[in-house]
Amino acid sequence: MIPVDVTSVISILSRTPATVRELVSGLEDNWLHAREAPDTWSPHEIVAHLIYGEQTDWIPRMRIILDEKSDKKFTTFDRTGHFPIAAGRSIDSLLHQFEQLRLENILILVAADLTEDDLLKEGIHPAFGPVTLGQLLASWVVHDMTHIYQISRIIAKQYETEVGPWKEYLGILNR
Amino acid sequence: MIPVDVTSVISILSRTPATVRELVSGLEDNWLHAREAPDTWSPHEIVAHLIYGEQTDWIPRMRIILDEKSDKKFTTFDRTGHFPIAAGRSIDSLLHQFEQLRLENILILVAADLTEDDLLKEGIHPAFGPVTLGQLLASWVVHDMTHIYQISRIIAKQYETEVGPWKEYLGILNR
Repeated sequence: MIPVDVTSVISILSRTPATVRELVSGLEDNWLHAREAPDTWSPHEIVAHLIYGEQTDWIPRMRIILDEKSDKKFTTFDRTGHFPIAAGRSIDSLLHQFEQLRLENILILVAADLTEDDLLKEGIHPAFGPVTLGQLLASWVVHDMTHIYQISRIIAKQYETEVGPWKEYLGILNR
Repeated sequence: MIPVDVTSVISILSRTPATVRELVSGLEDNWLHAREAPDTWSPHEIVAHLIYGEQTDWIPRMRIILDEKSDKKFTTFDRTGHFPIAAGRSIDSLLHQFEQLRLENILILVAADLTEDDLLKEGIHPAFGPVTLGQLLASWVVHDMTHIYQISRIIAKQYETEVGPWKEYLGILNR
């Protein structure tokens, strides 16, 4: 376990766009649009979802926690909000937008100059109720990792049959 | 499902060193040496394991399958073989070695100029018995994805408590 501090959070958040770029940029369409199952997301859609999170989730919620208004309730995150972002876009265009938005959001995070007390301030999550800014920042990091994991799993699963008996040793195929 | 062909295999294998580099290069020691549990590997050790696979697993096994000798039995892979490689090394030194070895191995794969018939040729796995070269190449790709997944999961788990109630939404923490 590592305690949440803003420097650590930024050291992880700032590397995600390049990690995702290395994983998917230049991949052929059959990989970019591959799915694990119907109604699950493709790598292309996941990048759009990361964009949508930058636009509507993490920093907007940080602002609700830190600003002077008394209504601390977060807007519900729309899990389909990325579909219009993904439509008709090249993967490189999506990757570029994610990179730009993440960089802007990290600059906002740096400029906020958060104290330990700030990390304990609360907002109201539509499902969980009170959550702290520290929990929000930790979740932003873990959310990045969730989607790096998801992309690697989607790629792996395209070879689920092709690995033959090795499947037993390759735990990612059994998730 | 995507059929195994050498071009696709190379398009994935060739991006792994850079993906892993973006995930871990420059991370602070508490992340590089973090573990999910005792007796599990750290990101630092995983990079050493990837090196050891390049040295002793994938291409050596391809050679056993393709060469003229009648003994097609693979050497058993040593799951502790990477510990001496990891000992005392900086992450950047490990990443650099992985990058070099992977590049050399891809050049060997390209030079082998494999046909569809070659992909059906067999070696003898110490646990599974007969496996094809196609299955070996597919497993090499999936093995890369397994370890990208594992690194992202190790990073995520350091914040398992810090995310608070979000844990329920973040599936990677429940693996």
